[in-house]
Amino acid sequence: MTLMKPTTFVLDVDGVLSNGQFLYSEEGKIYKTFGPHDSDGLKMINALLDIRFISADKRGFEISKKRVTDMGFEIDLVSATDRYSYIQDKYNLKAVIYMGDGYFDVSILEDCFFGIAPAGSRKEAITAADFVTESIAGNGAIMDACIEIKRRFF
Amino acid sequence: MTLMKPTTFVLDVDGVLSNGQFLYSEEGKIYKTFGPHDSDGLKMINALLDIRFISADKRGFEISKKRVTDMGFEIDLVSATDRYSYIQDKYNLKAVIYMGDGYFDVSILEDCFFGIAPAGSRKEAITAADFVTESIAGNGAIMDACIEIKRRFF
Amino acid sequence: MTLMKPTTFVLDVDGVLSNGQFLYSEEGKIYKTFGPHDSDGLKMINALLDIRFISADKRGFEISKKRVTDMGFEIDLVSATDRYSYIQDKYNLKAVIYMGDGYFDVSILEDCFFGIAPAGSRKEAITAADFVTESIAGNGAIMDACIEIKRRFF
Amino acid sequence: MTLMKPTTFVLDVDGVLSNGQFLYSEEGKIYKTFGPHDSDGLKMINALLDIRFISADKRGFEISKKRVTDMGFEIDLVSATDRYSYIQDKYNLKAVIYMGDGYFDVSILEDCFFGIAPAGSRKEAITAADFVTESIAGNGAIMDACIEIKRRFF
Repeated sequence: MTLMKPTTFVLDVDGVLSNGQFLYSEEGKIYKTFGPHDSDGLKMINALLDIRFISADKRGFEISKKRVTDMGFEIDLVSATDRYSYIQDKYNLKAVIYMGDGYFDVSILEDCFFGIAPAGSRKEAITAADFVTESIAGNGAIMDACIEIKRRFF
Repeated sequence: MTLMKPTTFVLDVDGVLSNGQFLYSEEGKIYKTFGPHDSDGLKMINALLDIRFISADKRGFEISKKRVTDMGFEIDLVSATDRYSYIQDKYNLKAVIYMGDGYFDVSILEDCFFGIAPAGSRKEAITAADFVTESIAGNGAIMDACIEIKRRFF
Repeated sequence: MTLMKPTTFVLDVDGVLSNGQFLYSEEGKIYKTFGPHDSDGLKMINALLDIRFISADKRGFEISKKRVTDMGFEIDLVSATDRYSYIQDKYNLKAVIYMGDGYFDVSILEDCFFGIAPAGSRKEAITAADFVTESIAGNGAIMDACIEIKRRFF
Repeated sequence: MTLMKPTTFVLDVDGVLSNGQFLYSEEGKIYKTFGPHDSDGLKMINALLDIRFISADKRGFEISKKRVTDMGFEIDLVSATDRYSYIQDKYNLKAVIYMGDGYFDVSILEDCFFGIAPAGSRKEAITAADFVTESIAGNGAIMDACIEIKRRFF
């Protein structure tokens, strides 16, 4: 972690903004479960950082996109294996605060400016993160992250 | 807390009556999750206090309204930032028992007659409340609150 | 508890067979959440006892009925206040094993042959029950109850 | 457990890939709840073992099938009582890694090459299993299992 200011907050959707669960019918993936507090948290830091969502979930992308755009943010579909280089190329990884919960988020959490994992994430992500929220995903993890970001860097 | 009797019980919906979670499809916010016991609890104190619900959730307001009116109560849509002055103007904050779970409920919980937060609320709300229920939201938090209100004030 | 054999197993639906949660849309109560193991448990004791479900939930009754009849059992709609006398008149309360989770189940749990409450029930029901399951409602509470009933009475 | 290599990984769906919960409407069983990480885990070991799903849930089979085939795997409908002999006949039980959570999975978990139960399974399955995952079903139990399988046998 350097002393420069972070410029971008990149967040995964499933298991970070959603609680990770999704409902399947005979027709496929229909619903995802989101929760309270997170939208309020993002508003608190919206003027301080560029906020961007990212997701590898092709099948549920339109659901994630609807939720993220309803909150007023943008989202990109990027595969798990391309995620590291995508963030590096597009945003300068060293100025990125990254929030992710998965097995394949480890290298990003380690190499970014500041890595955040929600409580209840894969233990590999918990270990790699600089900060683990007290709240679980879908129940205020992003609010926790926003309070911590504001307190620590602004 | 003064010795006068409270006249109104104002409750937030999301994270108090609902468990805070909502389901998104590609079309938007479609479902909220509610639970048992709470409707029974409100019936227990319905004759003692004026019971009113309040919500800042514009997008899911029709869902909240359907649930609240099905239980026989009224609900108003009030933004998080207007909530304090709305309650103060409309109900006399010093005679209000308020139940809320969020970051922006803190000042109301502190300044009302008696502030209640469900178990599992934002820690800021937990700290500000006079009473924290044993049950979580969507699983009897309001029933707990109603038993406590009856025991303590009537 | 007498030494006679129980003849009937009466179960509440919400918070016993379901996990107590229900999903509301703008149209009203649409879904209830059920779980694994319970149907297998009831099959284990189906030849030993008459199994009957009961529910006070008018608004969600057709959902409860669909689930209960899909499992091959019957269900009656009885209000919370009429429940005690209904069971007493119809089944002989002293020969009934009753499983319930709510505030208004207390007197039935106390006066029946053997009262069972799922883990996570209202504490009033937990206190009144002769046996509290290890599993929560909607995740095997009824399976636990069936194993205990078979072990203890047959 | 012998020193031979396992050839097949057979997994139950409800309470292993799903969290065990399902949503009922007045029309019947409509949705099942699945979660993150598991699809990534199965990809990690897909080249090492033949992966097959099995389910006894007739009523929700088309939902399970949609989820399993969306992940690129096959699923068979086999009743709980036929499951043991089905796996024995079709795959050679002694070369099968089996993952199950239920009361009727005990004998398979005991007699297969290596038995795995998700955290939160029926205690009978937990006792019979060679390995219990740290994560619960529907929140990474299969990912845990895949990491353990790779570490231990390949």
